[in-house]
Amino acid sequence: MITGWRHPARLVVLAFLAATAAATALLMLPVAAESGQATAFMAALFTAASGISGTGLAVVDTGSHWSAFGEVVLLVLWQVGGFGIMTLASVLALLISHRLGLHMQLTVKTETNTLNLGQVRAVVAGVVTVSLVVEAIGAVVLALRFWLGYGEPFGRALYSGVFHSVSAFNSVGLALYPDSLMRYATDPWVCLPIVVVAVTGGLGFPVLFEFLRRRRKRWSLHTKITVPVYLGLMAFGTLVVLVVEWGRAGTLGPYGVGDKLLIGLFHGVMYGSAGFNTVDVAQLQPATMLAGDVLMFIGGGSAGTTGGIKVTTFALLAFVLYAEVRAEPSVHVMGRRISAEVQRQAVTVALLGVGVVMAATLVLLATSSFRLDDVLFETTAAFGGVGLSSGLTAQLSVTGQLVIIVLMFIGRVGPITLVSALALRERRRRYELPEERPIVG
Amino acid sequence: MITGWRHPARLVVLAFLAATAAATALLMLPVAAESGQATAFMAALFTAASGISGTGLAVVDTGSHWSAFGEVVLLVLWQVGGFGIMTLASVLALLISHRLGLHMQLTVKTETNTLNLGQVRAVVAGVVTVSLVVEAIGAVVLALRFWLGYGEPFGRALYSGVFHSVSAFNSVGLALYPDSLMRYATDPWVCLPIVVVAVTGGLGFPVLFEFLRRRRKRWSLHTKITVPVYLGLMAFGTLVVLVVEWGRAGTLGPYGVGDKLLIGLFHGVMYGSAGFNTVDVAQLQPATMLAGDVLMFIGGGSAGTTGGIKVTTFALLAFVLYAEVRAEPSVHVMGRRISAEVQRQAVTVALLGVGVVMAATLVLLATSSFRLDDVLFETTAAFGGVGLSSGLTAQLSVTGQLVIIVLMFIGRVGPITLVSALALRERRRRYELPEERPIVG
Ligand SMILES: [K+]
Ligand SMILES: [K+]
Repeated sequence: MITGWRHPARLVVLAFLAATAAATALLMLPVAAESGQATAFMAALFTAASGISGTGLAVVDTGSHWSAFGEVVLLVLWQVGGFGIMTLASVLALLISHRLGLHMQLTVKTETNTLNLGQVRAVVAGVVTVSLVVEAIGAVVLALRFWLGYGEPFGRALYSGVFHSVSAFNSVGLALYPDSLMRYATDPWVCLPIVVVAVTGGLGFPVLFEFLRRRRKRWSLHTKITVPVYLGLMAFGTLVVLVVEWGRAGTLGPYGVGDKLLIGLFHGVMYGSAGFNTVDVAQLQPATMLAGDVLMFIGGGSAGTTGGIKVTTFALLAFVLYAEVRAEPSVHVMGRRISAEVQRQAVTVALLGVGVVMAATLVLLATSSFRLDDVLFETTAAFGGVGLSSGLTAQLSVTGQLVIIVLMFIGRVGPITLVSALALRERRRRYELPEERPIVG
Repeated sequence: MITGWRHPARLVVLAFLAATAAATALLMLPVAAESGQATAFMAALFTAASGISGTGLAVVDTGSHWSAFGEVVLLVLWQVGGFGIMTLASVLALLISHRLGLHMQLTVKTETNTLNLGQVRAVVAGVVTVSLVVEAIGAVVLALRFWLGYGEPFGRALYSGVFHSVSAFNSVGLALYPDSLMRYATDPWVCLPIVVVAVTGGLGFPVLFEFLRRRRKRWSLHTKITVPVYLGLMAFGTLVVLVVEWGRAGTLGPYGVGDKLLIGLFHGVMYGSAGFNTVDVAQLQPATMLAGDVLMFIGGGSAGTTGGIKVTTFALLAFVLYAEVRAEPSVHVMGRRISAEVQRQAVTVALLGVGVVMAATLVLLATSSFRLDDVLFETTAAFGGVGLSSGLTAQLSVTGQLVIIVLMFIGRVGPITLVSALALRERRRRYELPEERPIVG
């Protein structure tokens, strides 16, 4: 059944919209707000959309606006969004792999495009287990630090640990503090666990699954591309932050060398994952913001908790470029060949991503008085599911908020559903027309 | 001879560098400056590089800084640059076409990759003839207007007509006035001839040649893509300028409806061609600038006088996207098939273009205190060979000037030499590795 893919994709997209609607309703309840007053529709909708998509952009301050009830709604929403996106993307990748020969070793492979319930159950079980275990470890480490290092009451420290660990793993990046994690900027016992949990979620389920269930010596090409490229992008981000911000009074300037390195690493990693910040994003230099734009647009690993075009898509473009410049007739990567079909899919995802982000940027610029630095940072953050903002989110018009909401959804489910649609459809073989060559360049 | 292409490309690149060196030396002469004092090396180098590449960005005011001698040096430089680039690109396209089956009807086709001298002569003669005829017509119309409409002395009016016509056809966009053509903003007798001459140069020699020598009913695919897409991009630019700037006090606000439309059209066209301006570029809204960035990055037609990735490259990406989304196994455009090789070349040119512009933007941002709006406008203008600047050019550091000089060269000769290198090399047939499919998106 060629069209079998549509059911899981459609179902999960519908489930995403339903969860957003439900969360919006719950967040509008007076009990969800610290003040005991009903939250306005747009603020609730924006928070719900930002939450389900794991983006973490916010029009109200998380810690002070929402009550304990509201915060639990958010936590559940983030977790549902994370489970949903990882399951959807993994199932679709599995569906594609059956047809195209990737070996994921998940369960017994079938030869059709329909998955049996057992396979889907295995994916769901794997996603839930991995998520909860990683989140639990992160929560315990953070809770111990908040309890022992900062003298918070045990219950409060545990809650805070769970909250920030779930926020990190699902690439949400919202903290209980109005300044994100700036108060912990120099504390490696808070920053490093957050980094590890966020990167684990950002790597994506297929890579994690392979790490855990490896029986063979050989890693899949997907893992062999994702891990080094993801790390390389983080290293690039860290380098730019350190070089550009090293002496700047508003950001790294006041800190010692060790703290500078910690903050640089934290921000270099956060661009491609959760989007917490430990320095004031509004004080970052335009060069740091531009490098961030690129990293946020790319995002993390496939079937992970980030948005964006994904690390493999970016890497495939680079491989195509390299092969073309070297005059190789086919694209070979680490002993494997990349089919023309996959190359075109990567080009399509990237072009559509650029188109969507540029269109949104143009609309936001035309309907506001913001400058390009801030707007492009906001749109790539929304598309990449990164909750970083130079402060523009809170000032958006209703039009602007709707643009960002749409971008957050597209960034999270767009590339996945697009690629599965591209990969699983039936290509109609038509007659071939005579070739003609327009001049390029 | 597969490597035959290298000779014309290398020769012309070397000729470009030699012309830049010679022009730099001439411009440094005291007699070249209005003041009678020697111009500094960097200013002369920047002016020469900007001139040979037809970019028209300027670190000194053309009209007041350079003497009559200096201006003639510039005119010759622009003309040499225009001849050179159109000839180079046309010869290389012809070289490729021989091998790949495009019918340009230029002369008798040979079956090898070497052109005979007669063919090259025919191209040079065609380029020179078309350039001089179009420039002469433009010069006469402009001169008449300056003479009869503004009461300038006949000699001065003629000189001004020649200067601005040559500047327009070769996509330079430098005027004799410090405010470009703002004083003629509402004069269609100046603006429209400039538009026509600039668009003619921007269309590219292959399209012009086909217009002039058409013997068959059928246009080539290259022309059928270039003309409507180029016009469409200009229409998009015009629309954005009109919609965004309509009521803005610093730009279109003070003008009546007819004048608004004229200025909108002028700017919509200038982004993809010469880069004159009739409103203050520094007053443009960020949204107008971003749309301009996109249009300047794309540029005009292949083997024309603009820089950028070119209209056909942009169109090919759109066709690839459309075919992929529609699940077509091959890319068909207007009754013709686009080979996978040409598709990959377009992707390569676009990706390298994005990479070069982003890298330059990052360096400029990191080494200055400018904002992204202005810097991206400057870098895309340099890459696209468009002489528009929001005022940043004059404030660039030496590093910044060098970055822009390199960008101007790459934007002008990069895509052409890249594509001919890609198209004419020998593809080594290697063993094929087993296929593996990483997850995309
Ligand atoms: K996030
Ligand atoms: K120009």
